[in-house]
Amino acid sequence: MNDAWAATVLTLFPEMFPGPLGLSLAGRALASGVWKLDAVDIRDFATDRHRTVDGTPSGGGPGMVMRADVVAAAVDAMHSAAKPLIYLSPRGKRLTQARVRALAEGPGVTLLCGRFEGLDERVIEARAMEEVSLGDFVLSGGEPAALALLDAVVRLLPGVMGAAASGEEESFESGLLEYPHYTRPQVFEGREIPEVLTSGDHARVARWRREEAERLTRERRPDLWEKFQKDGRKSD
Amino acid sequence: MNDAWAATVLTLFPEMFPGPLGLSLAGRALASGVWKLDAVDIRDFATDRHRTVDGTPSGGGPGMVMRADVVAAAVDAMHSAAKPLIYLSPRGKRLTQARVRALAEGPGVTLLCGRFEGLDERVIEARAMEEVSLGDFVLSGGEPAALALLDAVVRLLPGVMGAAASGEEESFESGLLEYPHYTRPQVFEGREIPEVLTSGDHARVARWRREEAERLTRERRPDLWEKFQKDGRKSD
Repeated sequence: MNDAWAATVLTLFPEMFPGPLGLSLAGRALASGVWKLDAVDIRDFATDRHRTVDGTPSGGGPGMVMRADVVAAAVDAMHSAAKPLIYLSPRGKRLTQARVRALAEGPGVTLLCGRFEGLDERVIEARAMEEVSLGDFVLSGGEPAALALLDAVVRLLPGVMGAAASGEEESFESGLLEYPHYTRPQVFEGREIPEVLTSGDHARVARWRREEAERLTRERRPDLWEKFQKDGRKSD
Repeated sequence: MNDAWAATVLTLFPEMFPGPLGLSLAGRALASGVWKLDAVDIRDFATDRHRTVDGTPSGGGPGMVMRADVVAAAVDAMHSAAKPLIYLSPRGKRLTQARVRALAEGPGVTLLCGRFEGLDERVIEARAMEEVSLGDFVLSGGEPAALALLDAVVRLLPGVMGAAASGEEESFESGLLEYPHYTRPQVFEGREIPEVLTSGDHARVARWRREEAERLTRERRPDLWEKFQKDGRKSD
């Protein structure tokens, strides 16, 4: 239990956690101590009697900005320097499966969730936060992004996924999108499972899946396909 | 109330909803009837007495695949053709703020959340599902992605964000990342708020913010910067 992977989430809405992460795969892993989750209310680090955490933007404009001093106090009290300190922000570097895997291999993470217009820029700089974005869209706060990031990481922790092989063949791990899946019934609305998959010929199955993964990647994600070819087909 | 924006989520974990969407901005909008959310258990559409929703992958391999017939029954019972039908999958087209805005301008959405290895390919084809991905990483299921997508959409619904101007100047809406924010205190750990922001000169503030947004985009996201220049500076 001492070396459980440990996530600390700094948020104005600690009651959003564990939320979906309390159920299913992540929830079972949380209950069994594979990982632990500490959701900390940033408001506890406000210093005035109104527990103020934000202020109007300098220079004007809509919304509110989270105060540098309050956020810094929360980080300084709760964050351990052995772990990455990630601020979830649409201005950040986009999350990738490689970053997810690196996080899973480390001791844990501290996630900072912004609300309103975001954090005062000075605390991002002063605490050298890594800015990470889920993608090119805007959320009402960092919390849904934190839930998604933690879900992606936790499933990779040792013992969380049932089959040891799981996770190896899926999208991005090989640099390709995942091949199509089929299961019974054999015929669905006149559509049959591709014959090769029921042939019992494992080499043919493996070849077909590889070709389908390459075709899907080429058709849907020319950017990934180009990178895959340049990287010299890592999974070969 | 009749024309509330309506989300239907087909999932094996309906208890994950509304989750974080029941709080804060999205939660207040849900309580006041700006949008509604129906989380439907796909297992209710299983037809055998064990309520089976999945099967082993044809051709072998780890994990389980969600059955085409069960998923089709859930879609046929719960999905309205007036709305987009989105399957959240890492093989899909990446979610963008433009897609989020288009969803917010429509009547709602049906979201299908996969678990295990995903859906039988035939039901994706037979029901012409739109595959949408949050980004190049893998989740334990579609649920955290559905929560993030809905959060992004709901904040854009009329009346949800306080200031009418909010949302106009933020990341992606202009094709640029958002400029840095500051608020009091005036000095934080020796760092001052940039002088221009307290000058009271609105034209200078606007120019500085625009230049900072351009600088950040150029430095952090050359791909967005290139697109922004090609698109002829939409926001000018």
